Amino acid sequence: MGNQFQFVGGTRGRWAVTRMTTICGDGLEPTGFVDVTNADPPVRPDGAAWVLRGFTSNLRYATAAEVGALRAIQPPLDRPEATCAALIPLRKSAPWWDLPQDERRAIFEETSHHTAIGLEYLPPIARRLHHCRDLGEPFDFVTWFEFAPGHAPAFDALLCRLRETREWRFVEREVEIRLRRIDP
Amino acid sequence: MGNQFQFVGGTRGRWAVTRMTTICGDGLEPTGFVDVTNADPPVRPDGAAWVLRGFTSNLRYATAAEVGALRAIQPPLDRPEATCAALIPLRKSAPWWDLPQDERRAIFEETSHHTAIGLEYLPPIARRLHHCRDLGEPFDFVTWFEFAPGHAPAFDALLCRLRETREWRFVEREVEIRLRRIDP
Repeated sequence: MGNQFQFVGGTRGRWAVTRMTTICGDGLEPTGFVDVTNADPPVRPDGAAWVLRGFTSNLRYATAAEVGALRAIQPPLDRPEATCAALIPLRKSAPWWDLPQDERRAIFEETSHHTAIGLEYLPPIARRLHHCRDLGEPFDFVTWFEFAPGHAPAFDALLCRLRETREWRFVEREVEIRLRRIDP
Repeated sequence: MGNQFQFVGGTRGRWAVTRMTTICGDGLEPTGFVDVTNADPPVRPDGAAWVLRGFTSNLRYATAAEVGALRAIQPPLDRPEATCAALIPLRKSAPWWDLPQDERRAIFEETSHHTAIGLEYLPPIARRLHHCRDLGEPFDFVTWFEFAPGHAPAFDALLCRLRETREWRFVEREVEIRLRRIDP
């Protein structure tokens, strides 16, 4: 499997949209379904309202200790019981990207505790981060989360805590799309 | 101008190849010319022996002090007198990419002084770094350099110093292509 993914909002797909919320900035056109594909080069399926592209990459901020902690407990995607998902595209502001690496790292972790907060919700919440900014896409990141229905309240709490951080003051566009898997 | 670039080795282009050296790993097919284009989506011109794609992005390791030092003296591309260029695609090994951010940074700068060495050769040597690994390309980076003929010995020295560093022990494929601009 390559590292290039696309998220297609349209009239079909493995995931049914249960709720779509614009957190800040411009929204996305409402759709009934989202499909996740691993396509390179990208294709635009018939009937797609929007297509978000992104790639997985190496970790950009984590230290050795943080990588070790994450790898020890992070779950895989596609667990049978994880029938809930969330697709969260977001864009950070120009001042964020103008910051040097050490200052971005300091806001990300020493001030906002992004990894430390996320670790508290593992292993119930599975996650895959996709980078989009370098492709000239309208969002900088798309994160895909999967969890069992019983863990939805914990996932809500995770989002609330992250959105209160100093890091999130640099988020200028964010859409939250909640989904339920359609089993064949 | 977008952030997506491609380097086309073939039978025509603005830059004539004067020397092509395989430093380590597999080489590239020898060509007479290289063209540099700013194309998105990428196109493969007729007669191209190879096409390398990459994007410019935010700085990944530089601290505030280093960014300030770089911005103060780095020259632009396309200076009339900078009729010499070098195209250096390289790939780092899997152990490099498995390192966490702090250990990559420590090797890159505190041990290998990559930015500090580079700063000694500014402003004569102009440089643009392109990231390729995230596109599934055969190289991780392509760096493009431009300088006046009189600064070629300084450029040679810069390459020698960087290739002696601990960071370069992680380089598993590197090709050096030296070029001369064809003025219309």
